[in-house]
Amino acid sequence: MTTSLEVVSLEPTPDQYRFSFGGGEPLITVAPGTVVELTTEDCYGGKVRGVDDLPSRVCDFPYLNPVSGPIAVEGAEPGDTLAVHLVDIAPARDWAVSSTFPHFGALTTTHSTAMLHEPLEELVWLYEVDRERGTCLFRPRRGGPEVELPLDPMHGTIGVAPAAGEVFASITPGAHGGNMDTPEMRAGTTVHFGVNVPGAMLALGDGHCRQGEGEVCGTAVESAMRTVVVVDLVKGGGPVWPRLETDEFLMSTGSVRPLEDAYRVSQHDLVTWAAQLTGWDPLDALQLVSQAGLAPAGNVVDTNYTMVAKLAKRYVPGAVAHDGVHERLRATASAYLQQR
Amino acid sequence: MTTSLEVVSLEPTPDQYRFSFGGGEPLITVAPGTVVELTTEDCYGGKVRGVDDLPSRVCDFPYLNPVSGPIAVEGAEPGDTLAVHLVDIAPARDWAVSSTFPHFGALTTTHSTAMLHEPLEELVWLYEVDRERGTCLFRPRRGGPEVELPLDPMHGTIGVAPAAGEVFASITPGAHGGNMDTPEMRAGTTVHFGVNVPGAMLALGDGHCRQGEGEVCGTAVESAMRTVVVVDLVKGGGPVWPRLETDEFLMSTGSVRPLEDAYRVSQHDLVTWAAQLTGWDPLDALQLVSQAGLAPAGNVVDTNYTMVAKLAKRYVPGAVAHDGVHERLRATASAYLQQR
Amino acid sequence: MTTSLEVVSLEPTPDQYRFSFGGGEPLITVAPGTVVELTTEDCYGGKVRGVDDLPSRVCDFPYLNPVSGPIAVEGAEPGDTLAVHLVDIAPARDWAVSSTFPHFGALTTTHSTAMLHEPLEELVWLYEVDRERGTCLFRPRRGGPEVELPLDPMHGTIGVAPAAGEVFASITPGAHGGNMDTPEMRAGTTVHFGVNVPGAMLALGDGHCRQGEGEVCGTAVESAMRTVVVVDLVKGGGPVWPRLETDEFLMSTGSVRPLEDAYRVSQHDLVTWAAQLTGWDPLDALQLVSQAGLAPAGNVVDTNYTMVAKLAKRYVPGAVAHDGVHERLRATASAYLQQR
Amino acid sequence: MTTSLEVVSLEPTPDQYRFSFGGGEPLITVAPGTVVELTTEDCYGGKVRGVDDLPSRVCDFPYLNPVSGPIAVEGAEPGDTLAVHLVDIAPARDWAVSSTFPHFGALTTTHSTAMLHEPLEELVWLYEVDRERGTCLFRPRRGGPEVELPLDPMHGTIGVAPAAGEVFASITPGAHGGNMDTPEMRAGTTVHFGVNVPGAMLALGDGHCRQGEGEVCGTAVESAMRTVVVVDLVKGGGPVWPRLETDEFLMSTGSVRPLEDAYRVSQHDLVTWAAQLTGWDPLDALQLVSQAGLAPAGNVVDTNYTMVAKLAKRYVPGAVAHDGVHERLRATASAYLQQR
Repeated sequence: MTTSLEVVSLEPTPDQYRFSFGGGEPLITVAPGTVVELTTEDCYGGKVRGVDDLPSRVCDFPYLNPVSGPIAVEGAEPGDTLAVHLVDIAPARDWAVSSTFPHFGALTTTHSTAMLHEPLEELVWLYEVDRERGTCLFRPRRGGPEVELPLDPMHGTIGVAPAAGEVFASITPGAHGGNMDTPEMRAGTTVHFGVNVPGAMLALGDGHCRQGEGEVCGTAVESAMRTVVVVDLVKGGGPVWPRLETDEFLMSTGSVRPLEDAYRVSQHDLVTWAAQLTGWDPLDALQLVSQAGLAPAGNVVDTNYTMVAKLAKRYVPGAVAHDGVHERLRATASAYLQQR
Repeated sequence: MTTSLEVVSLEPTPDQYRFSFGGGEPLITVAPGTVVELTTEDCYGGKVRGVDDLPSRVCDFPYLNPVSGPIAVEGAEPGDTLAVHLVDIAPARDWAVSSTFPHFGALTTTHSTAMLHEPLEELVWLYEVDRERGTCLFRPRRGGPEVELPLDPMHGTIGVAPAAGEVFASITPGAHGGNMDTPEMRAGTTVHFGVNVPGAMLALGDGHCRQGEGEVCGTAVESAMRTVVVVDLVKGGGPVWPRLETDEFLMSTGSVRPLEDAYRVSQHDLVTWAAQLTGWDPLDALQLVSQAGLAPAGNVVDTNYTMVAKLAKRYVPGAVAHDGVHERLRATASAYLQQR
Repeated sequence: MTTSLEVVSLEPTPDQYRFSFGGGEPLITVAPGTVVELTTEDCYGGKVRGVDDLPSRVCDFPYLNPVSGPIAVEGAEPGDTLAVHLVDIAPARDWAVSSTFPHFGALTTTHSTAMLHEPLEELVWLYEVDRERGTCLFRPRRGGPEVELPLDPMHGTIGVAPAAGEVFASITPGAHGGNMDTPEMRAGTTVHFGVNVPGAMLALGDGHCRQGEGEVCGTAVESAMRTVVVVDLVKGGGPVWPRLETDEFLMSTGSVRPLEDAYRVSQHDLVTWAAQLTGWDPLDALQLVSQAGLAPAGNVVDTNYTMVAKLAKRYVPGAVAHDGVHERLRATASAYLQQR
Repeated sequence: MTTSLEVVSLEPTPDQYRFSFGGGEPLITVAPGTVVELTTEDCYGGKVRGVDDLPSRVCDFPYLNPVSGPIAVEGAEPGDTLAVHLVDIAPARDWAVSSTFPHFGALTTTHSTAMLHEPLEELVWLYEVDRERGTCLFRPRRGGPEVELPLDPMHGTIGVAPAAGEVFASITPGAHGGNMDTPEMRAGTTVHFGVNVPGAMLALGDGHCRQGEGEVCGTAVESAMRTVVVVDLVKGGGPVWPRLETDEFLMSTGSVRPLEDAYRVSQHDLVTWAAQLTGWDPLDALQLVSQAGLAPAGNVVDTNYTMVAKLAKRYVPGAVAHDGVHERLRATASAYLQQR
């Protein structure tokens, strides 16, 4: 590859972290095609460092889930497509944490599924992260076997500024992206966002060494990350909900409540997207997705729930999504990784 | 293998099909350990044989989704665990069908998500099934590319008689099993049911050549099947909700509405099951499942929605589920397949 | 009034109570127009008689919520409308009970909204019923003011046999009626059911001295009742979901999950019913209901949730519902009450 | 009454209307106890003036649902209680409008309950408002009887700035209030909000000549209003969710999805509020609310759904809510109305 890569760095200072999507000035502005090397802090702001650091004591509510950004992208206008390719996501420390959290999680009384129970006990788990071996070690707090889990790093939170001047807490997922908490947000994936404001205003954070589908206790194996992304722009064609693309899969997301509506949104988008890519009638696309689609949960704990609708590209013959930007960004990523 | 296998056959005549779980006399009674070779009809009762056979015209409501059975299992008592291992599921014809259906599906007005729209158009798709090559061919009705899909045969409906004398239509999934419509119900899987009535009263049907997660249009690639199961009994230990087990995975199911409650039920069962198998505290099991669990949708179209909670056995060290019956049934299946 | 009234009596013996809708032989068969004087037991089967009688100890699961019936109605055929007018509902004892119940209620972990909490504490409240003054007395178990509440007797459970051979536990509400738990089911109301099986097979029970909307703790002021109903038949026109009618209101019900679907079902039925009664276009009926309709919760605790959609008759000019059977039954009720 | 009333006026110019809660500078700042006479525009920004003015054509998305404000209240600090008493709500014109709206409403495909149907037809209804007689006239668009409905003016939207720097579109209801769309928001009601930011930042709009519970088509009888409120402050005690109070009732609200969670939030707040006011144990308060509470739907169409939990004050002996501010504001309102 002979073209030179634009590579910029973003390492927010503690006071530069943001806790919402929308509003505020960009930390940096980049041209489409730029590689951004950035750091993110964990969802606890790095304040939970051992099993005695209960989040409800050491964290500063509501300043949770810091994101790095916003990154303004030159030329991005409402209606455009912002494509963000995740090149690399590397845990920044040799430990990571997870916890229960009062009034948060799928199997506990919460502020919206309000019950008369006392909250579940707040507990912290500390994971040893072995970046060489690619593992993180689960140590039960109250006995029983330890389990070594493979690293599968991802970002829980990535998004752009919402439409209509809204500002959402970074823990909220929605049409703007945000805290979707899907394990599909790993290196190798391109995310397509519809742009709502000039510059798009990309931000990301909430790195996970790994996460189960649904994130049932409310948190993953939370870790600060060293992450590399390439951002690019396709004029027009902005999707209503974030879409993910890998070499193998097309994915639509829906982040609303109840969970069946998140399923509906994601499947509706995948069906109409597949129809548009192939020329199928929407009912034909519905039929194909019914037989070949996957539907893993993203999160079932946040202020909106996220479902992912997933279709192998080999079942969408000849499809070129969003002007082929994923393939271009894969090439950029390869060039970057070779020269790094 | 020197022990002789008990093998019985169940080929219901058209008037012997049942359309509910619960009530009625068993078609056959078998001893634990018996291999049952059986046939099932498709969810349309075999009446939809071409694209002009609209289900609403050719089917005889509410007599949809016939099941083969019930099969009484000797010695099964309320509280026991009925283990059913799916040995083989083979499409019985060289074609299969799917359709939309007025007031059925996730992206249409239904009898419970009632709207003022006219129902989506009723359309039938006929698939060519090539059992040699292991494929079924999707032909769009209104142009665009055809797609060859791999066969991945499964049963949408399998269950036992409900508790407390209830009788549920065979299209309803619940704690008794029934129409869970999860692609995980394929050959190689053992299902564990809690027994509610003497004899357990197993029945199954609704074979699918393959199915997407969620079954978004409401039907899969529907096919009559030649199926082989082994049934076995573990005294006591009957799970509240059906559990699935393969060589690799433990799975819990939940079939209720809304979809987040199906998620909760399935995750709650998986967490408490993992805790019981390992000696972990429930909060430790919750933590492990949060990081290592999978959560695919079963169906989001039936009278109850189904979520599956799935955990790799390698993350549950030393666990032996339901007295190890899955391993025993795998051995029986191997013996059967070798001598067949 | 000169016509003689047919009056029959139904006082089930303890072993005659049923715990489901559907299946079984009728206890009595009556002609349309018959007045039935009947007794019902409370939802605990009369076994909770003081604050130390914890339901989970004294009741015999799953034999809860007994109903009196079924009452077969001569000439009732599938598709017909069974009209049941509640003439009188009188508490049978000078006490009534309520309780929390492990895994039951809207503000507690349940079998379907499954959480890792211990269930809420099981507590019983004993109410003094003063039939003369028309009150029942709430005595807090742990201090604080007592409150005298007006009697407003109603039946939580009333329904017919479901369609398609299904049998539902009496605690389940649905299209067949059942445990709708709406305070609107008081004397003066006519319920219209669609008939699913010959004879319709009416049954009722679960009397409440009074009940809040939603029945948030899971139980009302539960009481055995002496109840008088008149049953009548309108050939054809059977509604899909139970409808209620008083001198002032038309009401539709929906009993499904999630609660917004129960709302949708009930509003959809009210809108299409109002359109049919007036000749309005469905969109015009939708508009009128949007401005003039009421939407109280029935229950948000049972296996299905119930919403009621309610429209004052004065906003539906000239409407005659279900052939005017409510007015006829009001006349019958008056005649009966005068001669009693 | 001898104390002089502080009365200020707020008549926003067209460019002063806001379309969100949170952010921005106050239009006016008032002292606690001030009477504010204000005007509000209808949800269409006054642009729909006849049946041919389809909202999707004449309105300027997303600039819908303008609110008047924010009004900063001197001394209001996070954690305080802002009490707003609705003194008078008077339709400003002799006409009002309602409409269906593509992808909005409870009985139609929406952006979150996404289906493959075409949206319901967009239709406008024009109501004649007769302020003398206190009526508005429903004219069906496609024949059938006209209906005169009583005026029952209310505000669909009233709220304060959200916590944590969030900014929500004015069509969203939540813990900050906003577009709750409950008919209970009529003259005579005091609303208690928890204050999230200095000054509280009250805004209101979306006047309705009347509205059904649930607002099933998505809009009410929409009208510009001349409204009078008194605002007051109670230090501390800010409720998590907006509470309403009248001479007769205490009311809690919950605005989330699904609808059962809105029910849970509102009932949970009412139960714990009643416990706090009386000294009852929470389980005793739960019991009382179960028997005496009401649960009408607010809206089942907006981005969050709203349920209201309602308890007659006569069942909460001796209770004085939020320092008795409702009674004080009633007195202020009387004084104002006498001198007007």
